[in-house]
Amino acid sequence: MSRLIDFYYDYSSPYGYLASERIEAVASANDYTVVWRPILLGAVFKVTGQAPLTEAPLKGDYAIMDFARAAREHELDYQHPATFPIPAVAACRATLWIRDHEDESVRSKTSEFVHATFRAYYTQGKDITNPGILGACASEQGIQAEDLLEAIQQPAIKESLKSEVNNAIEVGIFGSPMMVVNGEKFWGHDRLEQLGRWLKTGGW
Amino acid sequence: MSRLIDFYYDYSSPYGYLASERIEAVASANDYTVVWRPILLGAVFKVTGQAPLTEAPLKGDYAIMDFARAAREHELDYQHPATFPIPAVAACRATLWIRDHEDESVRSKTSEFVHATFRAYYTQGKDITNPGILGACASEQGIQAEDLLEAIQQPAIKESLKSEVNNAIEVGIFGSPMMVVNGEKFWGHDRLEQLGRWLKTGGW
Repeated sequence: MSRLIDFYYDYSSPYGYLASERIEAVASANDYTVVWRPILLGAVFKVTGQAPLTEAPLKGDYAIMDFARAAREHELDYQHPATFPIPAVAACRATLWIRDHEDESVRSKTSEFVHATFRAYYTQGKDITNPGILGACASEQGIQAEDLLEAIQQPAIKESLKSEVNNAIEVGIFGSPMMVVNGEKFWGHDRLEQLGRWLKTGGW
Repeated sequence: MSRLIDFYYDYSSPYGYLASERIEAVASANDYTVVWRPILLGAVFKVTGQAPLTEAPLKGDYAIMDFARAAREHELDYQHPATFPIPAVAACRATLWIRDHEDESVRSKTSEFVHATFRAYYTQGKDITNPGILGACASEQGIQAEDLLEAIQQPAIKESLKSEVNNAIEVGIFGSPMMVVNGEKFWGHDRLEQLGRWLKTGGW
């Protein structure tokens, strides 16, 4: 049994952002650690045949209302981005490069970078498809932006993201956020409470 | 401001069943009353372009696991029906006939009939597309089964169901369960806690 929560998310997912702000408290209250697993839902949707939530008739309007309502309930900043959804390829690659870096001092900044990137997009209206913005999110954490921006152009990191996405599909990930704990899946920002009860009790 | 919770559901929705078992406690704890609003999601899906949840790749397997997990958490009986989904037309019509009956002694049995019908399908493996089963659910509540079975064949009740479904689409209903309180929508069995907080605080 591991004490890890695999936190799968797409940067282009408001519920992923909201959950990213709350998952660490749920994890640490139960002695678990979050593993950040950025993916591209677009690639997953090719398998599941889904469309982006906000583009669905009726459901899309509800979702846009609900993002803001959920943010208010949990006192989180939220501004629905003017450009949405976005292809979060560069942000995913940057996160993986930091998370899997050989240098512990870089790896240890993963959470901070994830939060900085999500907040840039959902609270400051910044374009996180722009490598310059990602570089700024990195350098705020003491990570060399030039190293990052060069690294995310390399074949190795591109392969790494492909492999992460394929792995997510194999695991059965189909949405954002999805949390997996010892094989048990929880889908959605609105399942954080249930996940907390599961961790606390050991399941039912 | 009304003290009513419009509870929209499809009998062919396991989350609708689970929420039907819990919504009255949430309502009465906050001095609200539940209005049962059975609909046919199939008709709604023609507008939204959705497919039944359990037929979606990846998501379908998760959903079937999650129905049972949610039932266990809340100590509710649940057996995933062998035949699923089903066209719940007759069950909807029967519910509307009872709910809108001119005789208060019939109307007052609406909740009991809803529960009996849901439980017949999700805990006893009964075929609620069969009028005989619906008649039995009614007569257990002291409602004349013959009256019910004749009524659900009449043009008036068919029109009534059409009008309920059209009304639901106009309101923006796209799933089951959906709860609407003074225009505020809450989608999903997993939003009952949030709905309770909303009712208690007056919203945020």
